[in-house]
Amino acid sequence: MHGGDIYRNKVHTDFSVNINPLGIPEQVREKLAEAIGQVQAYPDERCEELREKLAMRFGLQQENVLCGNGASELLLAISRWRRPKKALLLAPGFSGYRRALRAGDCRITHFYLRKDEEFALTGERAKELAEKLRNGGFDLFILTNPSNPTGKLTELETVRMLAKTCEEAGTVMVVDECFMELTAEPESYSMTKAFLEYSNILVLRAFTKTFAIPGIRLGYLLCKDEAVAKKIALQLPEWNVSLPAQAAGIAALEQEGYLEASRVFVKSQRAFLEKGLQKLGAKVYQSDANFLLFQWKDEELYEKLLKQGYLIRDCQDYEGLGKGYYRIAVKNRMENEMLLQTIETMQGSQKR
Amino acid sequence: MHGGDIYRNKVHTDFSVNINPLGIPEQVREKLAEAIGQVQAYPDERCEELREKLAMRFGLQQENVLCGNGASELLLAISRWRRPKKALLLAPGFSGYRRALRAGDCRITHFYLRKDEEFALTGERAKELAEKLRNGGFDLFILTNPSNPTGKLTELETVRMLAKTCEEAGTVMVVDECFMELTAEPESYSMTKAFLEYSNILVLRAFTKTFAIPGIRLGYLLCKDEAVAKKIALQLPEWNVSLPAQAAGIAALEQEGYLEASRVFVKSQRAFLEKGLQKLGAKVYQSDANFLLFQWKDEELYEKLLKQGYLIRDCQDYEGLGKGYYRIAVKNRMENEMLLQTIETMQGSQKR
Repeated sequence: MHGGDIYRNKVHTDFSVNINPLGIPEQVREKLAEAIGQVQAYPDERCEELREKLAMRFGLQQENVLCGNGASELLLAISRWRRPKKALLLAPGFSGYRRALRAGDCRITHFYLRKDEEFALTGERAKELAEKLRNGGFDLFILTNPSNPTGKLTELETVRMLAKTCEEAGTVMVVDECFMELTAEPESYSMTKAFLEYSNILVLRAFTKTFAIPGIRLGYLLCKDEAVAKKIALQLPEWNVSLPAQAAGIAALEQEGYLEASRVFVKSQRAFLEKGLQKLGAKVYQSDANFLLFQWKDEELYEKLLKQGYLIRDCQDYEGLGKGYYRIAVKNRMENEMLLQTIETMQGSQKR
Repeated sequence: MHGGDIYRNKVHTDFSVNINPLGIPEQVREKLAEAIGQVQAYPDERCEELREKLAMRFGLQQENVLCGNGASELLLAISRWRRPKKALLLAPGFSGYRRALRAGDCRITHFYLRKDEEFALTGERAKELAEKLRNGGFDLFILTNPSNPTGKLTELETVRMLAKTCEEAGTVMVVDECFMELTAEPESYSMTKAFLEYSNILVLRAFTKTFAIPGIRLGYLLCKDEAVAKKIALQLPEWNVSLPAQAAGIAALEQEGYLEASRVFVKSQRAFLEKGLQKLGAKVYQSDANFLLFQWKDEELYEKLLKQGYLIRDCQDYEGLGKGYYRIAVKNRMENEMLLQTIETMQGSQKR
């Protein structure tokens, strides 16, 4: 169960998938259109140009970068390579990890974040988590930063502390930064530089959300140890990244201005949505990303909004959440307003 | 090592990849261009429309069809699901199988076809192979029909006999028909119907070659046992088939006229190339597909042609072949003529 199932629902506005509200950058769209004229050729099996550009961006070598048919493919490849017997996940957290891990034989343990702390990974909770990592004998630990479903960032110092703990415990740590680039100051939170100071830390990212191209699949993985990168690559099929995806990725890496604008836009519209939801009586969780988790008294909000053509993410299948939790993407002003008005109207008609 | 590496070679005509010489059907190209306008949405995770259309085409249920990011992804997923300890491959044969199998821990045995029989799987050789399958304790056997690199078809009766043998031996058999639709009479050789009469037979196909869209990745797998299909699907990442690929596949399934024309074209141009090569003194192996294997006295033909901008497939890395074997795709008349002339000129200049 994921968001975005517009294929089996009648939806005019999809708030369930967290893509950049500014839409595809024009140059990326142009490159995609151009690439369609070239698909009689195989894609570059080695993704060299794209990997080279990514490597340059992060001050790495090409050998430290792997590209995948979406971050989901890279997760599966990590799971294949590592063959974890025991993995630790945070709860609430993205359900796709479970799927990637369960393709093998892996026992999954959850570390539960606390509702009264807004599911944040801070202070005592971070220490407890480190303790668990130190003694749990985990092969793999996945940290999503910012968190999905809350959108809350974990401080870089905390991530570093966990990385150090994992290094000492022999645990591979995946830092999933799929939503990082739409937060206000990615540089201050990202592990894309600091991961080099530790062993066994993999940083996962996606173009999908950042550049609004989920229909094209493209993710990447940063890996310090070239031998490990090679082993993970062996778990990927040949020609796994399509020709249009490679072209889109290369073009996307030149869109710094668009990213800057996206961050400003997301921040202001997230604040607008947050205020609006709070006004309507929702409990809204603190977010730094392009989506919001909120609690709502009416446990049928998902169904009711769907009847009106709005798809939101019902979070009851998230481990550690339950009924009445919903996640929505930050979209453009008009869409955000319409959603708020629709909820308000529904509420009004119930009261009458 | 594969064909098609136009990214690290200067190539004006690529004879190393075996795609349909008629190029992308116009309607498929249109649908691809249209799909680019829709990539702000996730692809349908379940590929329902495409799977439904494929199921209808083969008289199956949607549950019997899996779609993949190229046939290579499906091979890897089969390997993951089956976790073969022992696999049997034919030699010479496609090297991609080895990669898919080696991602796990699999001992690969080769059954060598004979050069003096043009590497065909007939008569005594088929019986020997069946004997080996009966007693070898193999978990997996892959048959490519038509063969790669020869392009030679194996008779349906022989494939059936092997399927029966595999069924009795508890061996999963994959019939890779990636090039079947470009042979003259696919219906008379394909297992897409007959596979239902046996257990453990998987039929693998690709849109890539048939519709000249290798840059877009799309393959499919037919599987009788729905429980098995579900298990294989668990080995695939989520949203593995991109939105443009799904759109292209749906459009491609309506291109019967194009396929008919392709078969006629391939047959006549293959004959033209075959004759031309023989005239130049090559030993050409019998092919029913859109490519030809030949032997050439000059072991540096690959390098020499590459200098002239022609990329062909040097087959020395094929298990069971060696230096002096080359494979070329059947392309359009002008390209085929130019290749022949280039070889002739090279030969002439050597003699002088």
